[in-house]
Amino acid sequence: MLDLLALHKYFILQHLGPGDTAVDFTMGNGHDTEFLSKTVGPEGHVYAFDIQEAALISTAAHLKETGCPENYTLIRASHHRLNEFVPVPFKAGMFNLGWLPGGDKSVTTLRSTTLPALQAGIEKLLPDGIILLAVYPGHAEGDAEGTEVEQYLSSLSRYRVCCTKVRIVNSPTSPYFFVIEKK
Amino acid sequence: MLDLLALHKYFILQHLGPGDTAVDFTMGNGHDTEFLSKTVGPEGHVYAFDIQEAALISTAAHLKETGCPENYTLIRASHHRLNEFVPVPFKAGMFNLGWLPGGDKSVTTLRSTTLPALQAGIEKLLPDGIILLAVYPGHAEGDAEGTEVEQYLSSLSRYRVCCTKVRIVNSPTSPYFFVIEKK
Repeated sequence: MLDLLALHKYFILQHLGPGDTAVDFTMGNGHDTEFLSKTVGPEGHVYAFDIQEAALISTAAHLKETGCPENYTLIRASHHRLNEFVPVPFKAGMFNLGWLPGGDKSVTTLRSTTLPALQAGIEKLLPDGIILLAVYPGHAEGDAEGTEVEQYLSSLSRYRVCCTKVRIVNSPTSPYFFVIEKK
Repeated sequence: MLDLLALHKYFILQHLGPGDTAVDFTMGNGHDTEFLSKTVGPEGHVYAFDIQEAALISTAAHLKETGCPENYTLIRASHHRLNEFVPVPFKAGMFNLGWLPGGDKSVTTLRSTTLPALQAGIEKLLPDGIILLAVYPGHAEGDAEGTEVEQYLSSLSRYRVCCTKVRIVNSPTSPYFFVIEKK
């Protein structure tokens, strides 16, 4: 019913355009990377992170197949090392927490890196920039991760960022997401 | 930051179009009525409810001034009497809880009618229809109303409706809203 993908794009496109810099914090199979790459176009740039080699291989193939401009850097490292790999502030970032679709389910995003990565992301985000973070509460780690993220976001000054939660209240195991907009 | 009005329109326009029937459950000064009237056009119809005479006068003037087609019925009655005044199922409904802007602040929407109105609305909503309900938690009655609405929506079968909550987590007194989409 609720078209989460369409809604993600609606939010991102209110902030991101040609020539901008974007970060895919959780590359996975590269679907978000593709969307960001096409949105920022040949004059922009996308940095994409994943700790799994399989994600980089799968994403590189996907970006070629879907005709993305060569405007991306695929980084095999944990996303909390943002500042080591991304030299400039960015306009939009996406987190898709949980495991690599089709990959090893034991390698979920770990709470020990999610919060530092999110914190570093918010620091490095440009004014009028956006970070979108999707949570998958259908497994225990995802559920706990979402709760921690919400506690952290709730503590931030509303004069600095606006943190919105979008969740289906009558389907507790469905994915939900946060929209973080910098002022 | 978060443009609530734009987001309301985004959701409604995914379900409502020319020739459809819509219901404004809380007419107020008629801004939602105007939006619904223009969206359904001359072939459609809007039913708008309010218990205050001032709301009907203000809305009638507003709809004329803004060039709406004559496709509306303004009803001075509580919105929980939906079935007495609206003869057909409808495609989109809007609730804006709280008091009439500029009006008597002691006349808030009352919890004793909000839930019956919402329940009647969901019953009468067409498949692929939408109800949008905005809550103003900045005053005690509004806060309690939002909690009751959420409890009710959380109890509904997800095979019948999809109930999404959109709320700024780091600004607890800011307005928030529910999107109810019928399957």
